[in-house]
Amino acid sequence: MSMENAHLCLDAGCAINARTLGGDMHGHEIKVTFQPSGRSVYVLPGTVLLEAAGRAGVILQTPCGGKGTCGKCRVRLVDTPPVPSAASVGILSPKQVEEGYRLACCTPVDAPLVVDVPAESTFESQQQILTDDSGADVEVSPLVHKRRFELPLPSSEDPRADLVRLRAILGDIDVSPELMRLMSAFLRANEWKGTAVLSNNHLVALEAGDTTDDGYGVAVDLGSTTVVGKLFDLVSGRECGVASAINPQVTFGDDVISRIMHVRENDDGLAALQASAVECLNTIVDDLVSQAGIRADEVYEIVLAGNSTMQQILCGYDPSALGEVPFVQAFEQAQILSASDLGLKVNDAAEVYVFPQIGSFVGGDTVAGIVAARLDRWDKPVLFVDIGTNGEIVLANGDQLLATSTAAGPAFEGARIRQGMRATAGAIEKVIIREDVDINVIGDAPPAGLCGTALIDAAADLLRTGIIDETGRILPADELPAGIPEALQSRLITEGNETRFVLAPAEDAAGDEAICLWQKDVRELQLASGAVRAGIQIMLQRAGVEPDAIHRVLLAGAFGNFIRRSNARRIGLLPQIPGDRIRFIGNAASLGAKLVLLSDRERAYAAQLQEQTEHIDLSLDPEFQMAFGMAMIFPTSDIDACED
Amino acid sequence: MSMENAHLCLDAGCAINARTLGGDMHGHEIKVTFQPSGRSVYVLPGTVLLEAAGRAGVILQTPCGGKGTCGKCRVRLVDTPPVPSAASVGILSPKQVEEGYRLACCTPVDAPLVVDVPAESTFESQQQILTDDSGADVEVSPLVHKRRFELPLPSSEDPRADLVRLRAILGDIDVSPELMRLMSAFLRANEWKGTAVLSNNHLVALEAGDTTDDGYGVAVDLGSTTVVGKLFDLVSGRECGVASAINPQVTFGDDVISRIMHVRENDDGLAALQASAVECLNTIVDDLVSQAGIRADEVYEIVLAGNSTMQQILCGYDPSALGEVPFVQAFEQAQILSASDLGLKVNDAAEVYVFPQIGSFVGGDTVAGIVAARLDRWDKPVLFVDIGTNGEIVLANGDQLLATSTAAGPAFEGARIRQGMRATAGAIEKVIIREDVDINVIGDAPPAGLCGTALIDAAADLLRTGIIDETGRILPADELPAGIPEALQSRLITEGNETRFVLAPAEDAAGDEAICLWQKDVRELQLASGAVRAGIQIMLQRAGVEPDAIHRVLLAGAFGNFIRRSNARRIGLLPQIPGDRIRFIGNAASLGAKLVLLSDRERAYAAQLQEQTEHIDLSLDPEFQMAFGMAMIFPTSDIDACED
Repeated sequence: MSMENAHLCLDAGCAINARTLGGDMHGHEIKVTFQPSGRSVYVLPGTVLLEAAGRAGVILQTPCGGKGTCGKCRVRLVDTPPVPSAASVGILSPKQVEEGYRLACCTPVDAPLVVDVPAESTFESQQQILTDDSGADVEVSPLVHKRRFELPLPSSEDPRADLVRLRAILGDIDVSPELMRLMSAFLRANEWKGTAVLSNNHLVALEAGDTTDDGYGVAVDLGSTTVVGKLFDLVSGRECGVASAINPQVTFGDDVISRIMHVRENDDGLAALQASAVECLNTIVDDLVSQAGIRADEVYEIVLAGNSTMQQILCGYDPSALGEVPFVQAFEQAQILSASDLGLKVNDAAEVYVFPQIGSFVGGDTVAGIVAARLDRWDKPVLFVDIGTNGEIVLANGDQLLATSTAAGPAFEGARIRQGMRATAGAIEKVIIREDVDINVIGDAPPAGLCGTALIDAAADLLRTGIIDETGRILPADELPAGIPEALQSRLITEGNETRFVLAPAEDAAGDEAICLWQKDVRELQLASGAVRAGIQIMLQRAGVEPDAIHRVLLAGAFGNFIRRSNARRIGLLPQIPGDRIRFIGNAASLGAKLVLLSDRERAYAAQLQEQTEHIDLSLDPEFQMAFGMAMIFPTSDIDACED
Repeated sequence: MSMENAHLCLDAGCAINARTLGGDMHGHEIKVTFQPSGRSVYVLPGTVLLEAAGRAGVILQTPCGGKGTCGKCRVRLVDTPPVPSAASVGILSPKQVEEGYRLACCTPVDAPLVVDVPAESTFESQQQILTDDSGADVEVSPLVHKRRFELPLPSSEDPRADLVRLRAILGDIDVSPELMRLMSAFLRANEWKGTAVLSNNHLVALEAGDTTDDGYGVAVDLGSTTVVGKLFDLVSGRECGVASAINPQVTFGDDVISRIMHVRENDDGLAALQASAVECLNTIVDDLVSQAGIRADEVYEIVLAGNSTMQQILCGYDPSALGEVPFVQAFEQAQILSASDLGLKVNDAAEVYVFPQIGSFVGGDTVAGIVAARLDRWDKPVLFVDIGTNGEIVLANGDQLLATSTAAGPAFEGARIRQGMRATAGAIEKVIIREDVDINVIGDAPPAGLCGTALIDAAADLLRTGIIDETGRILPADELPAGIPEALQSRLITEGNETRFVLAPAEDAAGDEAICLWQKDVRELQLASGAVRAGIQIMLQRAGVEPDAIHRVLLAGAFGNFIRRSNARRIGLLPQIPGDRIRFIGNAASLGAKLVLLSDRERAYAAQLQEQTEHIDLSLDPEFQMAFGMAMIFPTSDIDACED
C-alpha cells in the first residue's frame, strides 16, 4: 500500500470520526509533534504519518516510493503507538515494533502523536551519505576553519618577521592590511599563541586562547517571501538552530518583478531593498545566536542561496536588467562579499558566499537545489522541479544538465485566485471530493480562502468527477454527466456563463461569503500548470528523453512538499509517470546552502554544476509557445486519487 | 686624470681666483644649472662638472671611473663652453665638441654654466639598459594597465551575464563587489564599450571612452627626513615630475627610534604618525598632478620604498617591535594596500605597493636600491652601501647576497657633532686643508656649522697633515710633527686635555663663534665610520671575499653622492681599494621604486631579491664587536686626496 493509498482511502472513512481532544485537536485535525525538532502540525485523521512529517518540514527517506518495502522511513511513536501495519511488522524487528517503531509511510494518524525521528530516516541524512561514495556522512571541511598555533618566541637568533613566523606554522596565508595592523600586538599580548581563523588560505581573525571548538556559520535560503536561516557548528557540522522571517521586501511588492520595478523607478530603490534584506538577515542571525547561546561574532561565514533578483539586490548589484528582455544577470560565478561591508552583524571578518547563478530566472537557489540533489550523479534521466511563481526545471540526463524557468505566475501561491491566499492560518490547504467535500484548514481557524495545493486538489478531483471538463470549464448543473452525487451538484452556482463550486459554505467560512473554486481560478491554474508542463516537455525534447524514461521527478521547495502527487499528475502539472518515481526532497536550496557552508568540496561542486548546466531560455521559443498552448487542455488521464 | 684629480688639483689654484658675477655667484661659489631638470647648485671654482652634477642629483654614467676614457658622461654646455680638455677632444667628434659637448669628468667649472644632460648620459638610463640583456630600455609593463574594450550587445540569442560577457573579452579578471555594483549600469550607459583599468588580473576601474593614453603612477622614496615622489606616465614610462617635502613626522622626533618611542608611549601615536605621512604624500601628489596638469584620479598606483619603520607606520602596522631587542619587523614580503583606505587622494581604486623588507633595519629602501643596482647580476663581488643614520651594507658575491645594517649613528647627518648641522643652507659641506683651509658653504650664507661630508673632509685632511693621529686625537700645537704650515698651526685651540681645529674663524661665521672640528666630533666620526667599516669587514669575512677582490662599491643615497671618495677611504669608512671601483649611484631607492612601478617583471625581481638576500644581524655578534673596536683606529693609508 503506497502512502497516498493509505492516506486517502482511510480519510474517506475517518474524516467523520474526528474526536475533540483538548489542545491536541482543532475541529477535524489531530496534532502530531516531531522530535527532536519539536515541530507540530495538525492533520486530518487518517493522514499518513509520512505526509504529516512532510507538512512539518521533516522530509523522510522514501527510496521505495512509500510502498512500505524499504523500511527507510521508520520512526518511533512515543506513548501509545497504534497497532502496527502489516508492512511495519514485515520490515521491522519484533523488538523495534515493541519499542514503538513504525514505518511512517504505512501508519495513518488517528490520535495525537509524538514522533521521534531518527536522523538516519531523514532525507538530509540520505543526502549526506550521497556526498561520499563510501557511504560516509558529509565531510565537515568548511572553508572557514580554525587552527590552534603556538609560535617560537623571537630571539636574536630567530628574529624573523611576525608574518614570516606565523606563516611558518600556518602555511602561506594571505593577511589583509586590517589584520596586519592587529597581528603584532596580538602575538605579543598573547605569548605568541592563540587560534587562527582561516578561510581557505586567507587569515580571517586571530583569537586568544584555544577557540577551535567555537565557530559557526549560517546557511540562508533567501526567498522572495520567506527567509530561512540555519545555524551550524562549523566544527561538528551540527545544526544549532533555525530561524525564519518574512522577507521585509514584500512591502515593495510581492514578486521579483515589482521589486525590480521599484529599483528602476527610485533613485534609492536598490539601497532601500538591500538594506531591507540586510535587516532581515540581521534579525535572523540575532534569533539564531540567542537560540544557541553564542555571540554574533562567533559567526564566521554566511552562505546565501536565493533567486537571481534576491541575490543581486543583496549584493547591491542593480537587478534592472533581470526585468527586461533579454533578461541579463550580472554574474554567473559565486560572489564573495565582506559581511561587515554589507552591514551584517556577525564577525567583522566574516565572508558572505552568494551562490552561482545559471540564468536570470534560474538562480542560486536552483544551483543549491541541484547541489543537494546531486543531479549529475544519477545514471538515468531525472527531473528537478521547484514550483513557485516561477517553475524552475532542471533535467539531468547523465552528464547533460539543462535548466530553465517558466513563468508559472503566482497562482500556486494563492495570488490571482479570487479567494486565494498564502498557505497560512485559515487557508484551505487540502480538498478531497468524493460523495461530498472534505477540507483541511491550516491552523485553528475557520476557512478564509484557499492556497495553491487546495486549488490543485479541487481541480483534480472535479476533473475526476466530470464536473470540470478537459477544457477547464466548470460545468453548470444542467450539463453534468450522469452519476454526480447530489451533494456535489448542490455546490454548483451558475451566474451568466460562469459556474463556481462551493468548497466551504458561507456558514462555515471566516467571512460571510462561501469559499469557492471559480471558473477564473481554473483558468489561472491552467496557465500556471500549462507553463510548467510545457517547460518539462520542451526540456525532454531538447535532451531526447521520452517522458516514460524519467527515472525520478524530484520536487523541491515548500510548495512541492505539500502537493498531492496524484493530483499534480491529474491536472498535468507533472508528467504521467508512476507515483513512486516522484519524490519530495524538501527545501533543497537550504540543504544545498548547508552543504556548501560545511564543505569546501561542496563549494567546488556548486561551481562545477553551475558551469555544467546549460541554460535554456524558453521565453521566446516558438516550440514552447506551441506546447504551452496545447498544455492549456487538461490531460486525459486515468490517474486516480488512490492510484499512487 | 680622474675626476677627483681634476677637481682637487684645480681647486688648489682656483679657489682664490673667485670672481663675483651677479646672481650666478655667491662668495666663492659658481652657479651651475642642469637641464632638462632645471636643478641648480653652487660649487667652488674648479669643481669638476661630474661632481657638480652629483650635487644637483643628476647622476652621470662613469663606467671608467671618471678617467676620461669611456665618454659616457658627455654633456652639452650652453652659451660659452670652456676650452675642451684633451680627453674631451680625444673621445668626442669635432662636431660634438663644436656643438658644446664635453666630458663632465674632465671639465672644471670656472664660470656659471647651463648644462644640457642627454638622457643616455644619466645613471638611470644605464640602469634601464641593464634590465634587458639585449640593451633595450626598461620594458614598460606596469601591473596597472588599460585595455579598450567593446562588447557584443546582449540579445535573446546571447543573454550571457554581464561579468561573463566582460570576461570573454578581458580574460578571467577578478571584480570586487564595489565594482560589480557599478559595472552593469556602466556598460548600459556606455553602449557596452569603454576602457578597463587592470592591475594584474584584477579590474581596478571602468572608464568611459578611450582613456588608454591616460594613466599615471607615483614612485615614492619615503625617507625619515625627506620624502621624494616622482610622477610617471604608465603608458610611456616617461617621468612627468618630481616633488619633495620634509617628512612632517620630524615633529615627532628626528630619527626612527624617537618615532617608535612616540608610538609606544601614546595611545594614538601610531595613528598620528600615519596620518602625518599620509598628509605628506597627499601634498606631494597634489604638487605632482598640478605640475603635470592631470587629475589626481588619473593616478592608479603608488609604489613606496622606505625603511622598515617608515613603511610599517605608513601601513598602520605597529613598529614597536622594531625598536627593541630582538628587533622584529611585521612582514618581509611586499604589502599591497588600498590607497583610499589609507586616505590617499588618488584614484579610488588605486593600490599602494610597499616594498619588501629584509630586516628591521634593512628595509624597503634597501630592497629598492638593490633592485636598481641589479645586485645579483654582477659576476664579481660588489658592495652596496647606503650611509645614513644606519649604514646599510649589502654584499653581492655571485648569487649570494648578504645584507646588514650598522648603527652608524647620526654623526654623518650632523647630529651629535658639536657644531654639526644637516646639509642645508649655511652648512660647511666641503673642506680642503693644504697650506691653509678652504671651505664650501651651502647656499648664500655665512658658515653656521658643518655637515657630514665636511666632517669627513676635515678629518681626512687633518690625518694627512698629521694634525690628527691614528688614534683620532687632535694634537695640540706643541705635539705636532714637523712641517705643518703655520696657518694650520694657528687654527689649533687647546683647552685642558682637548684640542679643536678652527674651520671658519668667528669673524666669518654666522654666529659670533668660530666653527671648529672638536675632539669629540672626531670621536663621533670614529664611532660612525668604525661601525660601517666593521660591518663591511664582517660581511666580507662571512662571504669569504678579500677586500682586494671587491669589484665595485656602489654608494647609494643622498649622503653617498656627496662624499669625497678619497676622504672616505682615508678615514676608513670605505675599503682601501682603487677609487675607480667606487661609484655613486644616486637615489637608488627612488630608482628602484620607479622600476617596480613601471614593470611587473621588476616587481617579481624585487620579491626574488628579498627572498634571496640573507639578513645578518650584527647587533649581538661578538666578531662584529671586536672588529668595531679595532675600526676605532684610523687606518694607516697612503691614499692621498689627489690619488683617485
